[in-house]
Amino acid sequence: MFTCLRHDGKARLGQLTTAHGLVSTPAFMPVGTLATVKAVPSEVVAATGAQMILANTYHLMLRPGAERVARLGGLHTFMNWPGPILTDSGGFQVMSLAGLRTVNAGGITFRSHIDGARYYLTPERSIAIQRALDADITMALDECIPFPATQEQAAASMRLSMHWAERCRAAFVTRPGYGLFGIVQGSIYPDLRKESVRCLRLMGFDGYAIGGLAVGESQEIMFTVLEQTVPLMPSNYPRYLMGVGKPEDLVGGVLRGIDLFDCVLPTRSGRTAQAFTHHGTVNMRNARHAEDSRPLEDTCTCMTCRRYSRAYLHHLVRSREILGIMLLTWHNLHFYQTLMQTMRTAIAHGALTACVESFMAGLRAGDIRQSS
Amino acid sequence: MFTCLRHDGKARLGQLTTAHGLVSTPAFMPVGTLATVKAVPSEVVAATGAQMILANTYHLMLRPGAERVARLGGLHTFMNWPGPILTDSGGFQVMSLAGLRTVNAGGITFRSHIDGARYYLTPERSIAIQRALDADITMALDECIPFPATQEQAAASMRLSMHWAERCRAAFVTRPGYGLFGIVQGSIYPDLRKESVRCLRLMGFDGYAIGGLAVGESQEIMFTVLEQTVPLMPSNYPRYLMGVGKPEDLVGGVLRGIDLFDCVLPTRSGRTAQAFTHHGTVNMRNARHAEDSRPLEDTCTCMTCRRYSRAYLHHLVRSREILGIMLLTWHNLHFYQTLMQTMRTAIAHGALTACVESFMAGLRAGDIRQSS
Repeated sequence: MFTCLRHDGKARLGQLTTAHGLVSTPAFMPVGTLATVKAVPSEVVAATGAQMILANTYHLMLRPGAERVARLGGLHTFMNWPGPILTDSGGFQVMSLAGLRTVNAGGITFRSHIDGARYYLTPERSIAIQRALDADITMALDECIPFPATQEQAAASMRLSMHWAERCRAAFVTRPGYGLFGIVQGSIYPDLRKESVRCLRLMGFDGYAIGGLAVGESQEIMFTVLEQTVPLMPSNYPRYLMGVGKPEDLVGGVLRGIDLFDCVLPTRSGRTAQAFTHHGTVNMRNARHAEDSRPLEDTCTCMTCRRYSRAYLHHLVRSREILGIMLLTWHNLHFYQTLMQTMRTAIAHGALTACVESFMAGLRAGDIRQSS
Repeated sequence: MFTCLRHDGKARLGQLTTAHGLVSTPAFMPVGTLATVKAVPSEVVAATGAQMILANTYHLMLRPGAERVARLGGLHTFMNWPGPILTDSGGFQVMSLAGLRTVNAGGITFRSHIDGARYYLTPERSIAIQRALDADITMALDECIPFPATQEQAAASMRLSMHWAERCRAAFVTRPGYGLFGIVQGSIYPDLRKESVRCLRLMGFDGYAIGGLAVGESQEIMFTVLEQTVPLMPSNYPRYLMGVGKPEDLVGGVLRGIDLFDCVLPTRSGRTAQAFTHHGTVNMRNARHAEDSRPLEDTCTCMTCRRYSRAYLHHLVRSREILGIMLLTWHNLHFYQTLMQTMRTAIAHGALTACVESFMAGLRAGDIRQSS
C-alpha cells in the first residue's frame, strides 16, 4: 500500500494507497477526535489540502460507540469524510484521560471519563472497534508510558506492547486497501527501540509507527531517537511519527525519513488564539493586532487570509466568538498542509535542504512589523 | 429607498434599495451582534439567502469601538459582509445588559457590562456611532420598557422616545442609499401607538419600525398591536417589526403588512441544539435521533441537510462539538430565509393564504416519525 517515489537525503516522497484514496507523503493528518476535526466542516478540511485524517478510538468507543458508527455506515459516511482515515488504538487516551486504569497482559480495564462506565480494552477489541469504524489504517494497541521512564519500566512496557502487537496482527482481518501499523516503543533507549523494531518486522505490518515520543522530551532527544530508530525500519513501508508536532518538528521528522504525522496543535491552537505563520507563531489576543488591517499572512491563500484582517481576528478572539476559533483553525490547518506540500515539492526537486533553510529562517525572523 | 411591488391582502412584496445593494421584502435579517453572525462565516450567511444583516450598536461601541471600525473601513469591510447592514440604536441592549443605567431627557448613562466603564449614549451619539459603523439603515434611539407597563409609564416612555427620535432625525446626515428609521412605541395601548406613529410621520423617516414588542407578551397581543398600528403607518415606506421572532410570528407579521424582521432565534437555537423544520422545532439532543441516518429535513437544500445525518448532528450536540453549533445554525438560518423566499413567491402569485395554511399545517403535524 506504500510506494516510495523519490529520496532527498533521508527524506522520502511517497504515496500511500488506501480503500478510500491516495495520500501523498510526507503527510500531516488533522485530528478528528470525535468524528469531527474541531470547528471545521469536512469540505473545509479537504480544501486545506488534507488527504487523510486521524480519529480517536477511545473517544469514539465511548461516544457514539463503534457499533453505532458501523450501523450508520462507518466513519466516512457518518462524518462525511470520503477520504482515508487512520484510527489510533485507544491506548494513548486510556492512559491520559480514563479513570481507574488497570493494565495487565490481557488488556486495559478503565472507567469512562464521561460517565464512569467500566470498559475492558484488549488488542482484539481495539482491532474490532477500528474495523467497525471502517478505518483505512488500523493501529496496534500499545502501552504509552510517561517521560522520563527508567530503562526497566520502558523495557517491560515495550515488551507488553510487542505482545499486544502480535495479538493485533493475528486479530486484524486483511482486506484490500486496509492496513495495520505496528508501533515501535522503547522510550529513549536505543537498544529497546532496536528490539522493538526487530519484533515488529518479524510479525510484519503494513506500516511502522514510532510511539512514545512527543510526551515531554526535548526536540533534541526526539530527533536523536529518530536518528537511531528510523534507519532500522523497513524502507518499503510508511513510517509514522505519532502525535508530532510543531512545524519545526515536522521539518525535522521529514529530514529524518518520516512519512506521516498527526497532531492536535493546529486545531487546538485555533481555539487558544495562536496562529501559525511563516514568521512564527502569532498570538492573536495581542493588542498590537487591534487596528492591523493586513491579513495574518499576505502570501497565504486560505479562506481566512483572503477575507479577514488581523484586526477582525483579534476582535473575534477578544470577544470569544466561535467564528474566531473557526477562522484560526482553518488557517492553521492550511498552514500545516502548505508546509507539507512545500516539502513534498522540494523533495521531488531534490531541494529539501534549501527549502528547510528558507523556512527556518522565516520562523527565526519573527512576525511582520506592526503596521504604522 | 423602498418600492412596494405587489400586495396580497395586507402582505406586501417590496424592494429596499441601499448603498450596499437590494433587499427583497418581506425579509428576515440574521443578527450579527459583534460584527459576526455567531458561528457563521459571511459567505455562508449569504449562501443561506440573507441579503441584509443586523449589527448591535451597543456591543460594537464597547468592543471594538465604533471609531476603530471606521478606521478599519467600516463594518462591511471589517466583517467581510458586502451587503446591506442595519444597526440598532443601542437602546435595547443598554436596557437589558448594561449596569447602573440612568435615563433622563438628555440620554442614557450606563456602565459597560464588560469592564464597568462609564458611557453616555445620546440620540446624537447613537447616530454618530451608526454612521461610523457605516450602517445602511440607522435606527433612532428609543427607550424600551418591559412588558407589562402601565399606560402612564408607556406614555411617558413613548414621549421620551419621540423626543429622541426628533433629535436623531436632526442629527442624521442624509446620504444616497442610507436611511434612518423611526421606531413606534406605546406598548399595548392603541392611543399611544397612534400618537407615536403621528409624531414620527410628522418628522419623516425612511422607514418605520415597531418596537416594544416581543418583550414577553403573547403572540395574540402582539398581533393585535400590529393590526391596530400597521394601518396607521405610511404605505410607501418599509415597516420593520423589531426582534421578531418565531417562524409563526414571521408569518403572522407578513400577513399583517410587515416587511422586515430580525431575531436571534435561529442563531441562538443553533447553540442550544434546536433545529427549525417544516415539521416544527426539533431538539437534536433527543435520543431518538441517535441512529437516524436521515437528514434533518429531506427536502432542505442547506449545507447541513445535504451532507449530514440527524445521527451525526445528535452526536455532535451531545459531544458539545463546535461543528454541531455551526451546522445547526447554518440550517436554521437557511430555514428562515427559505420561509421568507416562499412567502415572497406566494405574494407575487397572490397565493399567500394557501402558502401560509400549508406551512402552518406542516408545523402542526410535528416531526417526522422515528426511523425503524
